[in-house]
Amino acid sequence: MKLVRYGPAGQEKPGLVDKDGKVRDLSAHIRDIAGEAISPAGLKKLASIDPASLPEVTVDRYGACVAGTGKFICIGLNYSDHAAETGATVPPEPIIFMKATSAIVGPNDDVEIPRGSLKTDWEVELGVVIGKHTKYVSEDEALDHVAGYCLINDVSERAFQAERQGQWTKGKSCDTFGPTGPWLVTKDEVADPQKLKMWLDVNGHRYQNGSTETMVYGVKYLVSYLSQFMSLHPGDIISTGTPPGVGLGQKPNIFLKAGDVMTLGIEGLGVQKQTVVQG
Amino acid sequence: MKLVRYGPAGQEKPGLVDKDGKVRDLSAHIRDIAGEAISPAGLKKLASIDPASLPEVTVDRYGACVAGTGKFICIGLNYSDHAAETGATVPPEPIIFMKATSAIVGPNDDVEIPRGSLKTDWEVELGVVIGKHTKYVSEDEALDHVAGYCLINDVSERAFQAERQGQWTKGKSCDTFGPTGPWLVTKDEVADPQKLKMWLDVNGHRYQNGSTETMVYGVKYLVSYLSQFMSLHPGDIISTGTPPGVGLGQKPNIFLKAGDVMTLGIEGLGVQKQTVVQG
Repeated sequence: MKLVRYGPAGQEKPGLVDKDGKVRDLSAHIRDIAGEAISPAGLKKLASIDPASLPEVTVDRYGACVAGTGKFICIGLNYSDHAAETGATVPPEPIIFMKATSAIVGPNDDVEIPRGSLKTDWEVELGVVIGKHTKYVSEDEALDHVAGYCLINDVSERAFQAERQGQWTKGKSCDTFGPTGPWLVTKDEVADPQKLKMWLDVNGHRYQNGSTETMVYGVKYLVSYLSQFMSLHPGDIISTGTPPGVGLGQKPNIFLKAGDVMTLGIEGLGVQKQTVVQG
Repeated sequence: MKLVRYGPAGQEKPGLVDKDGKVRDLSAHIRDIAGEAISPAGLKKLASIDPASLPEVTVDRYGACVAGTGKFICIGLNYSDHAAETGATVPPEPIIFMKATSAIVGPNDDVEIPRGSLKTDWEVELGVVIGKHTKYVSEDEALDHVAGYCLINDVSERAFQAERQGQWTKGKSCDTFGPTGPWLVTKDEVADPQKLKMWLDVNGHRYQNGSTETMVYGVKYLVSYLSQFMSLHPGDIISTGTPPGVGLGQKPNIFLKAGDVMTLGIEGLGVQKQTVVQG
């Protein structure tokens, strides 16, 4: 299934995309794409609904494809060639950091350059959405805890991240820095999360052109690894790192300015388009 | 006012502590100590209630004193003498990092040593609870956005934090690593948040004995500073750093083991007591 949230910000309704690409309203069945609704039992129940029985709706705006996100966990330098372009080496175990959940926005909402920013940058990433409580799980069990996958732009302010006293959170958590969606694609529709092409364009120029094949630590490993440190809950998102081609990796560096347009996508997970505005 | 949340974990009810120290049920007036209820208007409304008109209740357990926390933001090395004891220097601007909100527990709940941990440590901290949306505010405006203050134990796993690939989140976010409360003390009852004595004992031995007077970056500055990077929302917590005396600062180092008991307090904000258990 491709699950969506649509409508004005803060008033999104749950829906699904049928085989013809039409969005159907799920409001009569669930309150939101969150919590119990994305558990294994909840998804099974949704899968049993005939999409043709659901009202078709016209969508003006997509919200983030999942709600009730308690943690937005990111993995740093998780593509060997991206690590190289930023002058870093591949870490011997995953680097994890948090992005504020208040940074989450819809996939096509404007991205705001924060005041004082000179180095706002892009990062196309595969998002993993957790479907049930996860603690001390093995790699073999890990995917049982995953509801599905989504597209994320891990927007980053490089000076805030690296030149303003350590701890990357500062450059990762600004409002609008987490476009998420359009779809939460349930894991049964993703044959292999480690074989997905991904790309990102700015103003029509392709900067990122990679594949999850070159991820250092894969999805199963990351879910298991994180669960050794903290419980994961339904709706938590793991953003798994970015392939090469970020602005910081260009020679000379290129950063976003008001009016720029980012388009990005991951195979099977849809496309995002954001206009950059000054905050 | 001293606001509390009491009852079994996940089913807490809102209450307040009257002038005789009795807990009174606020359920008839608000759903929880969260969101609108802790806004300036919400708190004004609560203050107009005669506590004697509220049912008195017996409390078996306190939950964290605030709910709906979207961000649990911590300030690193914010006491000059604590920085010195850990071998670090005072940073030229605040170090910020995130603690997972899933780490939040009640003030007297057990603290769990995660599997594989050898260096679980304590940190008594002043928590600042945000009461309304906060973005790009000045130091002068900052306190208008604060609902009140609370006691926090910023439990930390030092090896996870510092020896497992950068980014402190990993050693700060384990389940039960965020005892919060017992009281959310509204700011009108705290004459000066920069003049509060604070202490922490382990098994009756006093390890931390400080005051918020030696904080490097004070509450007003921190709220204003953070709001330059991201919006703060009602229920967000800022944990403002710890004074000297953590286990990592002892020679030789001392870390927690199952059966240890931590007691800690801040002047006017109540006392916590946690038993350490093996996870």
